[in-house]
Amino acid sequence: MFDQWRWVIIAPEAEINKWTAAFLVLNPQLFLEVGPQVKDPETVDVLLLWNHPKGCLTPFTNVKVYYSLGAGVDHLLSDDSIYNSIPICRIVDPLLSFSMTNYILFAVLYYQRRWDKYLADRQRKHWDHDAPSEEKITIGVLGLGSLGSDAAKKLKDLGFEVIGYSPSRKEIPRIKTYEEGELETFLKRCNVLVCTVPYTDKTHGLLSMSLFRKLPPKTYLINVSRGHVQVEEDILKALESNHLSGAFLDVFEREPLPTSSPLWEHPKVQITPHIASITNPQAGVKQICENIIKLQNGDLPDFRVNPSKGY
Amino acid sequence: MFDQWRWVIIAPEAEINKWTAAFLVLNPQLFLEVGPQVKDPETVDVLLLWNHPKGCLTPFTNVKVYYSLGAGVDHLLSDDSIYNSIPICRIVDPLLSFSMTNYILFAVLYYQRRWDKYLADRQRKHWDHDAPSEEKITIGVLGLGSLGSDAAKKLKDLGFEVIGYSPSRKEIPRIKTYEEGELETFLKRCNVLVCTVPYTDKTHGLLSMSLFRKLPPKTYLINVSRGHVQVEEDILKALESNHLSGAFLDVFEREPLPTSSPLWEHPKVQITPHIASITNPQAGVKQICENIIKLQNGDLPDFRVNPSKGY
Repeated sequence: MFDQWRWVIIAPEAEINKWTAAFLVLNPQLFLEVGPQVKDPETVDVLLLWNHPKGCLTPFTNVKVYYSLGAGVDHLLSDDSIYNSIPICRIVDPLLSFSMTNYILFAVLYYQRRWDKYLADRQRKHWDHDAPSEEKITIGVLGLGSLGSDAAKKLKDLGFEVIGYSPSRKEIPRIKTYEEGELETFLKRCNVLVCTVPYTDKTHGLLSMSLFRKLPPKTYLINVSRGHVQVEEDILKALESNHLSGAFLDVFEREPLPTSSPLWEHPKVQITPHIASITNPQAGVKQICENIIKLQNGDLPDFRVNPSKGY
Repeated sequence: MFDQWRWVIIAPEAEINKWTAAFLVLNPQLFLEVGPQVKDPETVDVLLLWNHPKGCLTPFTNVKVYYSLGAGVDHLLSDDSIYNSIPICRIVDPLLSFSMTNYILFAVLYYQRRWDKYLADRQRKHWDHDAPSEEKITIGVLGLGSLGSDAAKKLKDLGFEVIGYSPSRKEIPRIKTYEEGELETFLKRCNVLVCTVPYTDKTHGLLSMSLFRKLPPKTYLINVSRGHVQVEEDILKALESNHLSGAFLDVFEREPLPTSSPLWEHPKVQITPHIASITNPQAGVKQICENIIKLQNGDLPDFRVNPSKGY
């Protein structure tokens, strides 16, 4: 059935190789071309997109679905060359939550188990058995989408005190959640703030001084969402003024993070190169193919994005 | 009821202060003395012990219970001055598993999320988004007591591949467990070996070259049990020969770890000062008191140790 449709992938080269290989293993007959420059773009049915060059989608006039090769869709929604009537899908991958939650967990434990202290002690061969070896914390998860909810639930199962915030009401068993209008109440309770919001107009620059001021002093910040959700200048200021005690960041306003950024060398900041969660092509490809079959059968595909919400 | 019994605590000073405070908060009338030098030792009923001087328990001829102020009892079983007919109890603290499991989790993620790499990359301001950011691992938990089982279950819930070994058969839902006679089969499958065994005659020096040779090459070792379970010279050799890729150690043959130990500066070794799990006095005191009431009522106390097994 797949061979009746034309598929085009538009993404950075490393991504293209990875995804093409995974698609061909699952379905060797698949007719998958690399874009954006393809013959007769008006006969292409499926567009697989990851950080494509903006504005290049206009010629694909008969596309049936835009498929993001990841959980985020900001690269798609910010492109004026998409046709608004066409569904946008994203990957919702159980392996994605495995990686994301475990990354968040590592960052939480890095702080809660005082790793900076033990690392410094080790460097001077200092054995400190008696100091408290754990911080007492309430973890606030900002954004309760599929990744944020998974992290919140698993942190709770591990015995942590967890609360959550989502603009629309979300019910998670045993976890106190806050909604629109209750952001300040939520923030007031966090000793660790984990940011898992999608990137939208509303979350642009959200992690700024005005938000940090609403947290208890010395809150620890973990951001695994998108770089433009944070204002790095304000993070530096908040570390200086002890509004934040530290930050564990996987995403940055500019990626790769410029070598000139003071974040690289800041003693209270941990840095990873946007690797908290990388979509697994094997799992992703399977989900995409099943979803395209739905579409070919005339059903609405799963994992659709609501463009007005931005996720 | 408590005030009819005489309680004596024998432990290092910092421990005594911590525990005495917790006991008196719960029961201000408690008659708690500090030993080992007390008047009329033959009228003492309860001995609370943590790393007491060996051989000092003979004068306590009418003691009703020896209580370890922790999960381990090796400090008690290795002392010839205890009376064999008297029950030995230990603390089984839910907070103990909270801390222990989260410590193990941190150590697992430290390896699985390649923290050494990201730390080194950061130091040279190198942004490597494309390298695989996770190790594919099967975690083997060696020792399935209350702490080992808790860690195994929670690691499994987080999505990891987990197997376990215990000399006597242990059933844990969804986890393949191995028993006496199957140690080699178990070891062959581990990429991360988490040691949570009690310290007994049988586990003395267990983590040695002859065990490391049965693991797949480059297994990562995590030891949170007792220092004398490991042979540090062999760990160093195994790191050299790539039988082990790294070690995350909370316990050592000599504690504090002597500054002369090469482990301090070994680039493949992480060190913490025996802080993986520290018994919480508040929770421990409550459990001890409830258990002593049982004993006073003529019932057998809970959390008894089986001296022939050593735990």
